[in-house]
Amino acid sequence: MNQFYFLENRICNLLRIQYPIIQAGMVWCSGWKLAKEVSEYGGLGTIGAGSMYPETLNEHLTKIKNALKPSVPFAVNLPLLYPQIQDHIELIIEHRVPVVITSAGNPKIWTEKLKTHGIKVLHVVSNVKFALKAQEAGVDAVIAEGFEAGGHNGREELTTMVLVPAVAEACKIPVVAAGGIKDGKSMLAAMVLGADGVQIGSRFVCSLESSAHENFKNFILNAPEDATSLTLKELTPVRLLKNDFYQQVIEAYQNDASIEDLRNLLGKGRSKKGMFEGDLKEGELEIGQVAGYLKDILPAKKIMENILKEYQNLIAIIKK
Amino acid sequence: MNQFYFLENRICNLLRIQYPIIQAGMVWCSGWKLAKEVSEYGGLGTIGAGSMYPETLNEHLTKIKNALKPSVPFAVNLPLLYPQIQDHIELIIEHRVPVVITSAGNPKIWTEKLKTHGIKVLHVVSNVKFALKAQEAGVDAVIAEGFEAGGHNGREELTTMVLVPAVAEACKIPVVAAGGIKDGKSMLAAMVLGADGVQIGSRFVCSLESSAHENFKNFILNAPEDATSLTLKELTPVRLLKNDFYQQVIEAYQNDASIEDLRNLLGKGRSKKGMFEGDLKEGELEIGQVAGYLKDILPAKKIMENILKEYQNLIAIIKK
Repeated sequence: MNQFYFLENRICNLLRIQYPIIQAGMVWCSGWKLAKEVSEYGGLGTIGAGSMYPETLNEHLTKIKNALKPSVPFAVNLPLLYPQIQDHIELIIEHRVPVVITSAGNPKIWTEKLKTHGIKVLHVVSNVKFALKAQEAGVDAVIAEGFEAGGHNGREELTTMVLVPAVAEACKIPVVAAGGIKDGKSMLAAMVLGADGVQIGSRFVCSLESSAHENFKNFILNAPEDATSLTLKELTPVRLLKNDFYQQVIEAYQNDASIEDLRNLLGKGRSKKGMFEGDLKEGELEIGQVAGYLKDILPAKKIMENILKEYQNLIAIIKK
Repeated sequence: MNQFYFLENRICNLLRIQYPIIQAGMVWCSGWKLAKEVSEYGGLGTIGAGSMYPETLNEHLTKIKNALKPSVPFAVNLPLLYPQIQDHIELIIEHRVPVVITSAGNPKIWTEKLKTHGIKVLHVVSNVKFALKAQEAGVDAVIAEGFEAGGHNGREELTTMVLVPAVAEACKIPVVAAGGIKDGKSMLAAMVLGADGVQIGSRFVCSLESSAHENFKNFILNAPEDATSLTLKELTPVRLLKNDFYQQVIEAYQNDASIEDLRNLLGKGRSKKGMFEGDLKEGELEIGQVAGYLKDILPAKKIMENILKEYQNLIAIIKK
């Protein structure tokens, strides 16, 4: 087994994909169009169900299945705290979704049911303790996500560089690295750290096919290098672009906001408003630290091609 | 030029060392004994002058020069905000120290003077903007230090995974990666990200020859994976082990401490008390995120040997 060569790679074998690259399921940014492109190219495209009502998820599942050959796998990302999770699970089983990526919750509750239906289950973790619990719960692989990742994040603040080798050394099952990965360099670095594959989010937000609003995409392209911050730690830590809404959060902290105040300030629908509707002032804009260094919007397949080309070039340099 | 092979590596050529590994200069932990071991093995040992009066630095410089062959380089780490910096600079020039690593201040002030005396200057940075300023100031290389590193840290919270490739792409001069590096895996990952070398701190705190107090070393070996936190951001952000003193800091925040309150709480001499005198309750214990995964105290030369062996093994696996 040599994870650097995809024919021997455990994530490729497990998920029956050509390249060990998972496009992250991201609220409001990753519908069936983006997932289809990535899966068609040979990675694993993921529909982010966290921002979808069951009828919306049903629509996206129907469309991706119509668009992809039956042999081409794709995934659904499912936050386990989602209120209508039961409905989502039923839809996933009904549509025979090949892979489910679960996060933000206890993997013991749904893993067995999903696996009984032949569905592969990956679970997102932020420390070794949770990784071992997920392994015990029977998941097929864990996704070790570092502090630099966008959106919801672990409380320990362990970075990809520190977390990935620790999880890979502790677990028997395959490990996917997430957080700070955007190109061939960071992909190979993650594999060197012991990962069997990578999950890439922010880079795909800035793809032609992502459902992120144009305003959001363009805001990212102009973001300075210190553009994001991990905040709202008293609720669920989340990495955001520092826009007007973020400044409101900072002011709330300065005025000794209670957890209730913060929850009220966040309110409902802010992430939709920002990421999907393009309200850069009042919306919540979830993105990773790499946002400060993204400089173009590309077709998802071109992103895949670039990543793999850089990865192979680096391998060739090392081999010299 | 192929940074993975040390004969072609820019940091090895610049510093005239065999392996592109710099042992970080760390307050209270890295005196001449540790630096000597690392330099003798073929890396760059560093005396941390930030915790030394001029007479102490003089003593350490005399001792390391007596212990090392004249051809073997070593470094002094110098925080530029150090009150008696003028005296330190004079001592460094007088002792013909081959390499100076500066941090926490403006590299324009001293770089030229040091270089006039044939001293190589490396400067620690936490973002691309500072890296370009340091390059402009004429430093020979920059050290890009990520959020996961111990001790004083940047305000942007950029992790090694995100920061290193950005700095390496922006700068013409060589780049050393720091933060989260403790073994051959993380060393190779950093080089894949574009670094020409690595700086390693916490792993060397847990060496036989570090001047860290036994209590501190043993506390690290038993630290859980979420053992550290970046705090005191209103003063200078610093990554600490979460001990009783850290809890006092948290309580101060809960009681709306002002910057003045925080400064008073920190007081003077807390890092010496913790790291050098072994007071685990009242002392300030600076260490990186890898602390949670360090499991042994080894001779510094054995640490070097292990890192390089793992690095070479990984290269061999990639080459297969």
